[in-house]
Amino acid sequence: MSKVNRVAIVGGTHGNEYSGIYLLRQWQKNPEIVNRESFHSSMVLANPQAHEQNQRYVDCDLNRQFLPNLLADSELNNIEQTRAKQINNEIGPRGDAQTDFIIDLHNTTSNMGPSLILLQSDAFNLRMAAYLKMKMPEAVIVLEDEVPLEQQPYLCAIARQGVIVEIGPQPQSVLRHDVLEWMQTMTKHLLDYVHLHNIEQLPVLPDELQVYSYVETLKLPEDEQGNRMGMVHRHVQDRDFHPVKPGEPIIALFDGGELVWEGDYEAYPHFINEAAYYDNNLAMSMAKKLTIDIPE
Amino acid sequence: MSKVNRVAIVGGTHGNEYSGIYLLRQWQKNPEIVNRESFHSSMVLANPQAHEQNQRYVDCDLNRQFLPNLLADSELNNIEQTRAKQINNEIGPRGDAQTDFIIDLHNTTSNMGPSLILLQSDAFNLRMAAYLKMKMPEAVIVLEDEVPLEQQPYLCAIARQGVIVEIGPQPQSVLRHDVLEWMQTMTKHLLDYVHLHNIEQLPVLPDELQVYSYVETLKLPEDEQGNRMGMVHRHVQDRDFHPVKPGEPIIALFDGGELVWEGDYEAYPHFINEAAYYDNNLAMSMAKKLTIDIPE
Repeated sequence: MSKVNRVAIVGGTHGNEYSGIYLLRQWQKNPEIVNRESFHSSMVLANPQAHEQNQRYVDCDLNRQFLPNLLADSELNNIEQTRAKQINNEIGPRGDAQTDFIIDLHNTTSNMGPSLILLQSDAFNLRMAAYLKMKMPEAVIVLEDEVPLEQQPYLCAIARQGVIVEIGPQPQSVLRHDVLEWMQTMTKHLLDYVHLHNIEQLPVLPDELQVYSYVETLKLPEDEQGNRMGMVHRHVQDRDFHPVKPGEPIIALFDGGELVWEGDYEAYPHFINEAAYYDNNLAMSMAKKLTIDIPE
Repeated sequence: MSKVNRVAIVGGTHGNEYSGIYLLRQWQKNPEIVNRESFHSSMVLANPQAHEQNQRYVDCDLNRQFLPNLLADSELNNIEQTRAKQINNEIGPRGDAQTDFIIDLHNTTSNMGPSLILLQSDAFNLRMAAYLKMKMPEAVIVLEDEVPLEQQPYLCAIARQGVIVEIGPQPQSVLRHDVLEWMQTMTKHLLDYVHLHNIEQLPVLPDELQVYSYVETLKLPEDEQGNRMGMVHRHVQDRDFHPVKPGEPIIALFDGGELVWEGDYEAYPHFINEAAYYDNNLAMSMAKKLTIDIPE
């Protein structure tokens, strides 16, 4: 990874995830907080119309509209499809972006704490994660690199490097002091990392790092009419990144029964009972805990 | 208070408060859970259109549309105004209601635990609260009787007796196992109380009861353009019903400063950082802790 000249910091990709939106307002007043000598940061309020309506999105999830074929299709022109093209012009275009690195700021209603989601496991990303853990031990590293970045639909895939900062628990349309501070702190360390990378003065990093590597997403059980038959079990509620062994309860059925984890591995659930995932009837994501080597 | 012949249990007055909506579905399948020998319970899904849109309301807050002059005004006919009139016909009419007692089931994003909001402090209500505390010690009793029931805009004011069951923390559009069980348990005890009241077999109740009596609601600070200048301070976040002394921080300003509690009494905040109250830029409600006598 060569020098990073331009960074884009994005908030409000989902209009009811407030932390990034409010941090952008502060940073726009005080841009020195997010700039460093070796690069320039621009700030993007991604979905102002959804924020105005105090909703995740108006027509469709903005953070799924950034695949090249969608960006190229002029017939896709609802609010979010149009906005995706604008953002792609502003900080992209994807495939040949003027922006080298994107930080996309998100909140979750799940108890995930300060999480950094990596979409690639190259040296730049892994060293970034290792640096972050040194500076912010409470940070959690989630690896979602099962698909190459070029095939990912996310906003932050516009540039050749992009990460998702995902911090909770925060209800939709709420601003929590602790969550805001976590997001501010994590963003600061990520920007410091980019600067140290640029000037080739990274500190000595640990040899290895613990990460949670995404495996699969579990659905809530439905009856034949598509009605939910259960909810996340109290045994796992709020216990994001705590291990669940095969046979442990994960879903409480409304009829009093329960469903257990039937995978063949010790799973680390996250995005547990995330409000926005109800659209697709999702209960939680499952990860494996891995120790990975950090490239020198 | 004479015998209660008809009870109405209402869920989904706010379409994204899920616990009551899901409990109604279960009880509609098993009505014996909410009926007792001495009375009949009907069940009302109050705002199905808002629930379908996964929002608190479509046009305006349904739970503020039940003042007699609003119900009588035929020119008020948006979604919630119309629905209010239908509900008033179904279980009212207000002033001469066929329903004797209404339980309206709500959720809050605030950490209020299982709260019962009383809108009147007559013998029927106070004994109900004392009975509930005996059976469910974790329950919290909130008294909002500063205005006579006849002047209150709430759905549950249609009948001569009505209470609000208010349980959190639960993000909007999420169903938590623990919150659902609290709501189920509290509703059961309230219905048991009504039956014991009807057959005049209430157990010996305590002489007195601790309640949180509503005093005032605090706003978030705004600048001249109406933009928020701060958020709920971490010092009080999640600490509903914990005392705050004058001079303690309650608001964190985005510029780094803080605002302290300037009242002249030890306050018990609740509805702290409730998502729905952002519409009106509210930060929290303040109560005083009182010990009140329970009528024999």
